[in-house]
Amino acid sequence: MNPIDLRVYLVTDTALCGARGVSDTVRAAVAGGVTVVQLRDHAESTRALCRLAESLREVLAGTGVPLIIDDRLDVALAVGADGVHVGQSDMDPRTVRRLVGPDLVIGHSVSTPQEARAVADLPEGSVDYLGIGPFRATPTKPNAAAPLGASGIADVVATTSLPTVAIGGIKQVDVRHVLATGVGGVAVVSAICAADDPQRAAAELRASVEGPA
Amino acid sequence: MNPIDLRVYLVTDTALCGARGVSDTVRAAVAGGVTVVQLRDHAESTRALCRLAESLREVLAGTGVPLIIDDRLDVALAVGADGVHVGQSDMDPRTVRRLVGPDLVIGHSVSTPQEARAVADLPEGSVDYLGIGPFRATPTKPNAAAPLGASGIADVVATTSLPTVAIGGIKQVDVRHVLATGVGGVAVVSAICAADDPQRAAAELRASVEGPA
Repeated sequence: MNPIDLRVYLVTDTALCGARGVSDTVRAAVAGGVTVVQLRDHAESTRALCRLAESLREVLAGTGVPLIIDDRLDVALAVGADGVHVGQSDMDPRTVRRLVGPDLVIGHSVSTPQEARAVADLPEGSVDYLGIGPFRATPTKPNAAAPLGASGIADVVATTSLPTVAIGGIKQVDVRHVLATGVGGVAVVSAICAADDPQRAAAELRASVEGPA
Repeated sequence: MNPIDLRVYLVTDTALCGARGVSDTVRAAVAGGVTVVQLRDHAESTRALCRLAESLREVLAGTGVPLIIDDRLDVALAVGADGVHVGQSDMDPRTVRRLVGPDLVIGHSVSTPQEARAVADLPEGSVDYLGIGPFRATPTKPNAAAPLGASGIADVVATTSLPTVAIGGIKQVDVRHVLATGVGGVAVVSAICAADDPQRAAAELRASVEGPA
């Protein structure tokens, strides 16, 4: 089990980051308190994706915030990222583990208790954490499963002993409600990438996750 | 240097294979005499691509025809393919070599003498062969470089000591003309994938490559 602090998990969206760019958005978000960064970009060529991943690795160097690459273990290995996140239509986690070795973090997306139980049937240590969602429908992932809401997320959390993070249209005002499902953190795309001030947005999410003093 | 028989090199196109499917097209093409198969598909999810690569590995098992995966070394490693082919916008060949080890074949696309010379500057053994093209403009690769024709291909061949294969809209009637540039083989997409009878198309290409008796 590779430990990972899932409390405030940023998933990048290159288009939403806009003119500010992905690297500067990530730098601001880390200053604000995100605990993980996942690079997600399905539009770029492999060479451009490697270049972007490399620049995020530099932004994150020394911060203690891990860099996770969505889908592409080739890119994760090429740039020395900390982990890979695979969804239901990506490479199966057992094959990913065989190829990346024991030390990289592997995250896996699930939307149902069945999918979470299937992870429990994999060899011990195949998957380090589960992303559960979508909490609500979101334009950043048009082919996602139907929205689960808090009760649907709670149903999935109840079936797993792995660390979990909820994803899908989560806003700062949702955080306490989402955490009440038992998940270990909230993953966001728009709430930070599309924010006027990504550092402030990250700081507000972080404060909400840490809860009332 | 990993040896590879480049004489008749099939690059798959899932859409052009149509209802016949990629696996059956490849099976027919191998029966006709292709010497290499490259799986190229940028539309599928990673999971679907792995499944397709796995099925081609099964089709090719025992035939002696190697399976090369375009762009995606993750997929190549996952299914135990024989090699990876990377273009100018894919991962750089030196990084690919570091990740896949010495035994996988690495092919690299070049369109100019400059790009071919850049390969010569890489560490010995980074690249096993060069794909040179496009011979002519082709709808299967809309973002390709300007057509080279036979004289442009000959200019690139002259700058390299690596094995070479020409690509880009090559038809059976072009084969002798293309081979006169000094390349070791012809790579085709449409000439086999879009043929009414892919086995016969492959056999005719093979006969043309072997030349007049």
